[in-house]
Amino acid sequence: MFKPSESGVMTRSRKGWRSRVAANDRRRSPTSAANLPAKTPAALHLHDKQSERDYRELPIDKVGVRGLRFPIQVRDKERTVQNTVATIGLFVDLPKEFKGTHMSRFIEVLNAHGNVIHVENLTDILHAMQARFRAATSRLEMEFPYFMVKQAPVTKLESVIDYVARFDASACGRKVDFVLTVKANVTTLCPCSKAIAAYGAHNQRGGVTVQIRSRKSVWIEDLIRIIESSASSELYALLKRQDEKAVTERAYEHPVFVEDLVRNVAVKLKAHPDVTWYKVEAENQESIHNHNAYACIEKR
Amino acid sequence: MFKPSESGVMTRSRKGWRSRVAANDRRRSPTSAANLPAKTPAALHLHDKQSERDYRELPIDKVGVRGLRFPIQVRDKERTVQNTVATIGLFVDLPKEFKGTHMSRFIEVLNAHGNVIHVENLTDILHAMQARFRAATSRLEMEFPYFMVKQAPVTKLESVIDYVARFDASACGRKVDFVLTVKANVTTLCPCSKAIAAYGAHNQRGGVTVQIRSRKSVWIEDLIRIIESSASSELYALLKRQDEKAVTERAYEHPVFVEDLVRNVAVKLKAHPDVTWYKVEAENQESIHNHNAYACIEKR
Amino acid sequence: MFKPSESGVMTRSRKGWRSRVAANDRRRSPTSAANLPAKTPAALHLHDKQSERDYRELPIDKVGVRGLRFPIQVRDKERTVQNTVATIGLFVDLPKEFKGTHMSRFIEVLNAHGNVIHVENLTDILHAMQARFRAATSRLEMEFPYFMVKQAPVTKLESVIDYVARFDASACGRKVDFVLTVKANVTTLCPCSKAIAAYGAHNQRGGVTVQIRSRKSVWIEDLIRIIESSASSELYALLKRQDEKAVTERAYEHPVFVEDLVRNVAVKLKAHPDVTWYKVEAENQESIHNHNAYACIEKR
Amino acid sequence: MFKPSESGVMTRSRKGWRSRVAANDRRRSPTSAANLPAKTPAALHLHDKQSERDYRELPIDKVGVRGLRFPIQVRDKERTVQNTVATIGLFVDLPKEFKGTHMSRFIEVLNAHGNVIHVENLTDILHAMQARFRAATSRLEMEFPYFMVKQAPVTKLESVIDYVARFDASACGRKVDFVLTVKANVTTLCPCSKAIAAYGAHNQRGGVTVQIRSRKSVWIEDLIRIIESSASSELYALLKRQDEKAVTERAYEHPVFVEDLVRNVAVKLKAHPDVTWYKVEAENQESIHNHNAYACIEKR
Repeated sequence: MFKPSESGVMTRSRKGWRSRVAANDRRRSPTSAANLPAKTPAALHLHDKQSERDYRELPIDKVGVRGLRFPIQVRDKERTVQNTVATIGLFVDLPKEFKGTHMSRFIEVLNAHGNVIHVENLTDILHAMQARFRAATSRLEMEFPYFMVKQAPVTKLESVIDYVARFDASACGRKVDFVLTVKANVTTLCPCSKAIAAYGAHNQRGGVTVQIRSRKSVWIEDLIRIIESSASSELYALLKRQDEKAVTERAYEHPVFVEDLVRNVAVKLKAHPDVTWYKVEAENQESIHNHNAYACIEKR
Repeated sequence: MFKPSESGVMTRSRKGWRSRVAANDRRRSPTSAANLPAKTPAALHLHDKQSERDYRELPIDKVGVRGLRFPIQVRDKERTVQNTVATIGLFVDLPKEFKGTHMSRFIEVLNAHGNVIHVENLTDILHAMQARFRAATSRLEMEFPYFMVKQAPVTKLESVIDYVARFDASACGRKVDFVLTVKANVTTLCPCSKAIAAYGAHNQRGGVTVQIRSRKSVWIEDLIRIIESSASSELYALLKRQDEKAVTERAYEHPVFVEDLVRNVAVKLKAHPDVTWYKVEAENQESIHNHNAYACIEKR
Repeated sequence: MFKPSESGVMTRSRKGWRSRVAANDRRRSPTSAANLPAKTPAALHLHDKQSERDYRELPIDKVGVRGLRFPIQVRDKERTVQNTVATIGLFVDLPKEFKGTHMSRFIEVLNAHGNVIHVENLTDILHAMQARFRAATSRLEMEFPYFMVKQAPVTKLESVIDYVARFDASACGRKVDFVLTVKANVTTLCPCSKAIAAYGAHNQRGGVTVQIRSRKSVWIEDLIRIIESSASSELYALLKRQDEKAVTERAYEHPVFVEDLVRNVAVKLKAHPDVTWYKVEAENQESIHNHNAYACIEKR
Repeated sequence: MFKPSESGVMTRSRKGWRSRVAANDRRRSPTSAANLPAKTPAALHLHDKQSERDYRELPIDKVGVRGLRFPIQVRDKERTVQNTVATIGLFVDLPKEFKGTHMSRFIEVLNAHGNVIHVENLTDILHAMQARFRAATSRLEMEFPYFMVKQAPVTKLESVIDYVARFDASACGRKVDFVLTVKANVTTLCPCSKAIAAYGAHNQRGGVTVQIRSRKSVWIEDLIRIIESSASSELYALLKRQDEKAVTERAYEHPVFVEDLVRNVAVKLKAHPDVTWYKVEAENQESIHNHNAYACIEKR
């Protein structure tokens, strides 16, 4: 049984545990040992508060760093690479015996991939965290803008348009869980408004968020395609008048309630051979109200 | 088995279902019938798209309105009333047979309480939605600033300080589920920094978010108290020099890692006789980093 | 010429200036002197860093507190009072001789009005700051949600809808400058889309921000009226089908480019007998694009 | 004097003006003419609402597109290139005779630089807009994260840290105005707290925003250096214990009020040989308050 000293630091009577921690620390932090300049020998004696014993009998589910912005590269469906900027969170679990986590190790793991990290290496990052922290579970969250080139429907003029993608990944032992999220904005035109008005129909920008788990990789582009084909119309950056005419008419011909939008997407995800779980949300910035219409379907 | 007509509207051969829907509509919307001005008889013939049949075999978990700002009154521990402004979401489930929800009914339910809604009536709102929509499940989310008067620690000068509170409530049949969330900012001073530096210690503003379920009502003030007593120091709007000296020293005497912060709160919630479930999150705006430190404990 | 002592504190050879500062301090902070509990006599000896001399020859234009949330009451056109929550900033200028501002005085001035401040007293707050800080210039910024009850166009059903109002006021000597800002969302339907499409027309929620100076008070409601009458349609919280038909058709009959929207508003502001300066901005959440359309007119 | 036809379209009696507009349109939009697919000859007859005459006698100061996200490359001080993502706004003025702007041309100008735009070409973009729109004035705003590699103060371990940079550029005739903005977060430790407390001193993350005009290009890195050297300490992503000790002590040795922070920066900008105008703002997330401390100096 552990007894803390007055200052809370482990005494020699708990040598076994403490030296294990100290050894882990050296093993876990080769970087710090390796790079320690000769001029700061005192560094090795700086008290390690995080490794002190904790007695509240409370393991921590998730602890780490959040809100880190970092440049990344993402491989897209055409097998080219795009550069973007991610907002990143990195976490591990913390057993009840330990007072704290050595937060700097998260930064070391991230920067170990160079000044730009590659999204194919997510599993490497998860396992690296498990190793560095001797953690059972590690987690990563990474959200970033994602770009595609689109052709306008009639003139075929090309322009870049942005979406948002997000990875939530966790490793528990060797088991890896990965949720891909894609957010795309679309045009939604109201069927009720169209049905009852003598002319016109209210429409607006709506946002669709799709989260999936899958047995094989699913491309971000494929989820974007699913979302955009479920709406009254997809969005474009560049539309000349001929294109604007086409999208206006297409939206009018394909009215969808926010309920239709999530159902259309869900039908396609249900039919997708690789998708094992999904959650679809849609939120319309209603053009006639100062509030939004919202709907959500989650696979049971 | 249902067969749609070409326009999607139910035909007389499905009279049973359609007349039930029509009857419900009249029963559900006494307001619209009662207030219909004599000059618009055509109103009764406006096509009801939302009541059309849907064939995608997909019930919708949650559909409604979001982002509604509305003035509310909250009763606080002293049995006085405070006025604040809530951002509100209202939702129901939608069975697979129905194409859409009559979104305006959410607004009618909300405004039926007058221009200011009282937070004691949340269960009334949930049941009113179940009735209006003939829904099995109704949900409500309401987030708002919450104010308290505090005395500075030495001078006892009083000032107002703000927190955030949130209600997430749902009714499924007669069963009501209610989650209370309170967010409070605190001062956190780093134990490691204090232990290793010759003088000083880095500290920062941290935010703690506590969510609970309880068998009896728990006051927002009580959760605020639990959060503030778990940190290096609580925050104050008004501090004269004597007070600033006191809080600076108190923070230095009570260093907490973000891990300590969530554990301190969790210990108190575990000990609370009425709390049946909790989730505690803390996020520090680290003063020496451009990212945050984060920790989370959820009752298993 | 001033010479700092080693610690930076003023010495007796600068008695004139220092005693003036000390005297000001006592005069400016009656509260601190009055409320000082007997048990902390040392309080009077706590070093006043802010009153030290500064030698960088740099006056500060604006210094104070920002992001303070506080309950307020606003009197509306019907002479009733509404309760809302403001986000507040309070500032003064700082002459080049002074090292810092006693920030706590801002909080004292604000709380001196009780737990709720009344918007009619803005000038009082400005002058109180000038007095407390012996400042030439004081400034205040206050932004808050503002509510109105509207009737739906056909059914006349009433519901609450929200806007945003903001006060930016400054006092320089006795001269007071006051800018009223009102932000209202509207429906905008595109004239080009309507002209070229066989049916339908893209429309969206747009936001209009109007800032004015005026020789006499202008009601927030009056600016809201100006904005809403300049758009394709105004927004409503509650619309039954008859109302939805009416607003859909009205929008179609009144298409406006974002350029039309700002011009329509500017024409009315130019014609307003009390408005001496204005700035109008409109930003549409284009329903066919993932970017916004923006226009701005400022009175020359 | 112009007279509108019933539909608002210019009639032949105003041929001069209209044909000038039509000619401009063809000249301004080589892309649309060049790329028009053979199958849509009707395109040339789609009504050009934007070119209609306006009679409200109100020129528009600024009209265009906002909130466009786009990948960009920025050249940094080491003459290397970094990839990041900008949020972009593009605007021109609109003379009082014209009803509207052809918003699609902004997108064409932007995409004409390929799928990634280079920040050295800002002046090209401004002039391209002036040409495309026959505008007297064109404006561009571009805000993006900016990354630098830093060495920790003792261990010299390297890590990436992020800042925000922003360009606001306008061309009026041949005259180009360019404002560079850099936002960097820092550590600020309170001198008052340090002076009066027996131990410790409250500190927090603060944000500094510097805007400059200069007669020669100033590197983003140089403004970052100016900001970081003016604070109690700069921030780092990666700090081992030896580094944390160093920054904690450095902050304690260099306390700064928010007033000191802006003055320190302003002193350096005044002394900079190339800076012709500046505005410095600092906002501290005070660790003992729930509001921020703010200061601003603008060069007179």
